[in-house]
Amino acid sequence: MDIEDRYFKNISSRERVIFEGAITMGALFHQFVGTPVNSENAETLEKSIKEAMELQPCIEEVEVKIDRKMLEEAKSKFNYVSLNGDMLDIRVVSKYADKKAVLRMEYIEELKYPLMYVEDINE
Amino acid sequence: MDIEDRYFKNISSRERVIFEGAITMGALFHQFVGTPVNSENAETLEKSIKEAMELQPCIEEVEVKIDRKMLEEAKSKFNYVSLNGDMLDIRVVSKYADKKAVLRMEYIEELKYPLMYVEDINE
Amino acid sequence: MDIEDRYFKNISSRERVIFEGAITMGALFHQFVGTPVNSENAETLEKSIKEAMELQPCIEEVEVKIDRKMLEEAKSKFNYVSLNGDMLDIRVVSKYADKKAVLRMEYIEELKYPLMYVEDINE
Amino acid sequence: MDIEDRYFKNISSRERVIFEGAITMGALFHQFVGTPVNSENAETLEKSIKEAMELQPCIEEVEVKIDRKMLEEAKSKFNYVSLNGDMLDIRVVSKYADKKAVLRMEYIEELKYPLMYVEDINE
Repeated sequence: MDIEDRYFKNISSRERVIFEGAITMGALFHQFVGTPVNSENAETLEKSIKEAMELQPCIEEVEVKIDRKMLEEAKSKFNYVSLNGDMLDIRVVSKYADKKAVLRMEYIEELKYPLMYVEDINE
Repeated sequence: MDIEDRYFKNISSRERVIFEGAITMGALFHQFVGTPVNSENAETLEKSIKEAMELQPCIEEVEVKIDRKMLEEAKSKFNYVSLNGDMLDIRVVSKYADKKAVLRMEYIEELKYPLMYVEDINE
Repeated sequence: MDIEDRYFKNISSRERVIFEGAITMGALFHQFVGTPVNSENAETLEKSIKEAMELQPCIEEVEVKIDRKMLEEAKSKFNYVSLNGDMLDIRVVSKYADKKAVLRMEYIEELKYPLMYVEDINE
Repeated sequence: MDIEDRYFKNISSRERVIFEGAITMGALFHQFVGTPVNSENAETLEKSIKEAMELQPCIEEVEVKIDRKMLEEAKSKFNYVSLNGDMLDIRVVSKYADKKAVLRMEYIEELKYPLMYVEDINE
């Protein structure tokens, strides 16, 4: 079976990189939010999120930054917190044919919301 | 702040519905996979997935079907299973301005993979 | 195979209800934290969490309360939030042989932490 | 506030290590099931699960093994799978006062179920 032909010929290459990048963004958030984290394991967690999400179709690179300052502030008496979306700054680079998109998630104070958007995409 | 202007003017309305629908598809999968399920609670679970995911930006409707036959076959000695992607058939309808997309996730036997794709989108 | 004999004869019935209740408590938290929620779908979500977690071994009853006031306060511009542990008040009742335990999770302001503990257990 | 006094004086130290170990076992399963994995990122994922779960109260050590053979067999056309409980072999060591417990989760073919039990506990 030619998957491309059967399932993806109704969208352009540009639309495809948006599609695949966005799936990975939503997936990343809902897979890892809740994970116990503090400054000791933050780096390993960033790396494992990156490596896991780079396995998804058309994903070329994933960058994950967990806000160390927010980790410190949120810390409970038990010395760690549950990872939440506000602490995350994510870049997902997706590629298909000659198209490449950079998707971003960052917490926007004004919206009280970790916003996902297309930061960059080639024409 | 005008969010649309600041974060989304680099993509078209058609690209936007693909973007928002795909985020929700990835999110849904990774939020709910692992949930204990059998034929008794499957309907409530479908409904709660639907209602939760319909809250996301630009999402008009979500349909969730958990395969009852697969539930039966996978059932352990303890009479339930962990929800997995192979049991899910999902439709996400996203809308923005005059554009509407129907995204689908279904298990494709040939690929051994629950494939996400754009099932329908207006021109 | 007699599971009880093979895997559980090294702990008492009292220890068993603590064991099974605690598994369900940890499972519940990490399965559902992150789910999109507002006052519209909170009741359905509570019900689906309850029904799913009651499937686990030795679990007799699960009560889930999502704090409506915290939902309102945390609400983003997009009119919903990601469920977090601070909003949850949970009771898990586990039963084995003649023993019964009530486990509780509630947010303790002083600890900045959703604490899990054994609220009640018969001698 | 003395947490121990207020919330945990109704259970023994032995019961406490069972309680804390079991929470971590349930948490681990439901946090990480669904994560994309193949032989390339399995080691990083094991390490990040270990480090995250060792942050929880009374947890001294966590060992995580993802079955490489099952990873290969389950692999889809896209060259990775969603982590599921059947692939996991987990040991959680919990400690409180003079008590120590080793909890285990392993897939039991006969039960078609990843069983959690107390593997060892001092008297």
